[in-house]
Amino acid sequence: MILCDIGNTTFHFLDGNKEYKINIDDKLPLFTGQIYFISVNEKATKKFLSIYKNAINLKDIINFKTKYQGMGIDRVVACNSYDDGVIVDAGSAITVDVMKNGTHMGGFILPGLNAYKNIYPNISKKLKFDLDAQLNLDKIPLQTNDAINYAIFKSIILPISEIAKNEKIILTGGDALVFKRFFQNCEYKKYLIFDSMRGIINANNCIA
Amino acid sequence: MILCDIGNTTFHFLDGNKEYKINIDDKLPLFTGQIYFISVNEKATKKFLSIYKNAINLKDIINFKTKYQGMGIDRVVACNSYDDGVIVDAGSAITVDVMKNGTHMGGFILPGLNAYKNIYPNISKKLKFDLDAQLNLDKIPLQTNDAINYAIFKSIILPISEIAKNEKIILTGGDALVFKRFFQNCEYKKYLIFDSMRGIINANNCIA
Repeated sequence: MILCDIGNTTFHFLDGNKEYKINIDDKLPLFTGQIYFISVNEKATKKFLSIYKNAINLKDIINFKTKYQGMGIDRVVACNSYDDGVIVDAGSAITVDVMKNGTHMGGFILPGLNAYKNIYPNISKKLKFDLDAQLNLDKIPLQTNDAINYAIFKSIILPISEIAKNEKIILTGGDALVFKRFFQNCEYKKYLIFDSMRGIINANNCIA
Repeated sequence: MILCDIGNTTFHFLDGNKEYKINIDDKLPLFTGQIYFISVNEKATKKFLSIYKNAINLKDIINFKTKYQGMGIDRVVACNSYDDGVIVDAGSAITVDVMKNGTHMGGFILPGLNAYKNIYPNISKKLKFDLDAQLNLDKIPLQTNDAINYAIFKSIILPISEIAKNEKIILTGGDALVFKRFFQNCEYKKYLIFDSMRGIINANNCIA
């Protein structure tokens, strides 16, 4: 069974334990075995299906109910594994979704760390700074670099903590590890999307 | 007595009750009377002093103690009027400063609302949105526009509320009124900078 998560910039494959990231414009490799995929990228999906004609789009078989309009399939798949908890995917944006008793309650979208890196120098060249994920957030900042880092991390952590209350926080995405130390009841899942895809495939008795 | 707050883009004058905003590149008017000013703009200061040769820079007479390195004179002047409270200046950036028993404890710098407006569509064109300052923040969002507005307002409100605890919040700056409804113990001061400048002048027995 081969899994693929098609994003805006890469095809992300998992073939057994082997992981490949292939640039969206590069040549796709040949695989032996059934391919399952999700995609947030229409154009890349066409290219993908022209190569892997029998690949199965999990969007067509996932059974996920939410009142949320326009929820990306990556968020749907990430949430699908949890009955309760707050699922945080920290990438170019930071999506935060709340699951309660097996129901998706909604969520919100923060800018990702990289977006924050650009926003300050665009406001004023006096606000150039270096990201400092080790900053002590218990002290009120006494210089610009700390003042900006404090604001960024508090901006991200406090809305997530508030909505989570005492529920478990599940962290995934490229920047997830940076945030781990800020939450007490949290778990880091590097392969949350692939794990969830596997769960959906098993639940639907798909061919492996 | 004429007051002027020199920013990055404008000379902001107060002459009695008359207010003028003059573009930084435009011609400066003639005034009769002593002029006091503050400035965050070196180049504009030179132009200003070439016209108003006897203008007094309040930076030279203000007596404000802080361990904060590189605090802008506008923040210094705003804080100088308060012994206790959290001073929030919501402009292109949102500066947040904490005063306690007459001492400046430090502060932090959030992106301004306008900066947030640009950040999301730069991450992905799927994250285009309209600012909605009336959004109900007690409900978990169920669509992208709400999900982004919720994140923006929570990102700004929660760090300010956390640091303020039960202390009074003083709001000033172009976007200040947008935030007023989110804080219980708060006061809006449209002319905080000018009021504070007048306070400094009076305290120093300057010529009016």
